[in-house]
Amino acid sequence: MFITFEGGDGAGKSTHVELLAEYLRESGREVVTTREPGGTELGRSIRELILYGGDVSPKAEALLYAADRAHHIATVVRPALARGAVVVADRYLDSSVAYQGVARDLGPEEVRQLNVWATDGLMPDRTILLDVPLEVGSARVGTTQDRIEAAGREFHEAVRGEFLQLASEDPARWRIVDASSDVDSVAGAVQAAVADLFDGEHP
Amino acid sequence: MFITFEGGDGAGKSTHVELLAEYLRESGREVVTTREPGGTELGRSIRELILYGGDVSPKAEALLYAADRAHHIATVVRPALARGAVVVADRYLDSSVAYQGVARDLGPEEVRQLNVWATDGLMPDRTILLDVPLEVGSARVGTTQDRIEAAGREFHEAVRGEFLQLASEDPARWRIVDASSDVDSVAGAVQAAVADLFDGEHP
Repeated sequence: MFITFEGGDGAGKSTHVELLAEYLRESGREVVTTREPGGTELGRSIRELILYGGDVSPKAEALLYAADRAHHIATVVRPALARGAVVVADRYLDSSVAYQGVARDLGPEEVRQLNVWATDGLMPDRTILLDVPLEVGSARVGTTQDRIEAAGREFHEAVRGEFLQLASEDPARWRIVDASSDVDSVAGAVQAAVADLFDGEHP
Repeated sequence: MFITFEGGDGAGKSTHVELLAEYLRESGREVVTTREPGGTELGRSIRELILYGGDVSPKAEALLYAADRAHHIATVVRPALARGAVVVADRYLDSSVAYQGVARDLGPEEVRQLNVWATDGLMPDRTILLDVPLEVGSARVGTTQDRIEAAGREFHEAVRGEFLQLASEDPARWRIVDASSDVDSVAGAVQAAVADLFDGEHP
């Protein structure tokens, strides 16, 4: 079972990845939490290059994210899924489609194909979009920003719009959760958003 | 004018890139020499990751080379070509086709397409294959080897075979130079291999 969280900066993805993992562990499941970029040692070096490494051309950026993802899927996610663990990831390929494909203007379909190649086509069983208005997200992020976070309002509006579009195109995989309310309410909505994957048992 | 050198380790690529550049500069041309991976600041960091960064899955390796290449072409090669310089590069996308596509078994056509996307389809006007038997190349490299150089005989035979195959498929772009003889003879053969690009003038 492979569950991914998507959403803009400050949506609460890392918090809700951990809260969902705790909830799923209550019933004795092995749950692996991870993130992109940076879910492996190689990935942490790649993440440094992308976010703090100075000028990166748009296609190089997309390819670095895809490299991180290829290594992460091959060495962390597939082995965990193969032994029956639930994997909960903070971002996956939909982030590349939204950020590099749309906001960086490389084309969503090209970026999707690149990442399908990178991951040998591994798709999540469920993707939860934590959706917040830009004002809420940026207030949560605060003033210390990396290169992507600092990219400006139009960029982040384009990202949010693409996530909503992707979710509307594939309602079987996606659930949209309004992430502007308090942590407990959002956590409850996230639990409800995965309940059907576990056939009615306490997930 | 974009000229690339290909060939295995120890073929003499870096030496002949510089010798050809000197020769072309004699007639007053601006010549930019560069290399992949590592022709930019970002690329030097990527190169460190690939060659000395521990385990890298095959697709991640191909994507890191493509990221280096995308940034290198966008920020170094295209600007130089646009101002009329001759660019002479130590390795280009054919290396990825041979190393990752064939020797790492990812598929030459997939790797070619990935790199066509990464470079917006920039192809060299001339590619010079410096061909040497494996024994000659590895004797020149000596005992200090990076992760790729240390990959073993079968791997490097596959690379050499693919370079010869690529050259035979596109004789208008490729010239094969026997690089096992002395430096002066090889340099002369390299000069002859680009003469037609410059319409009979001293290139």
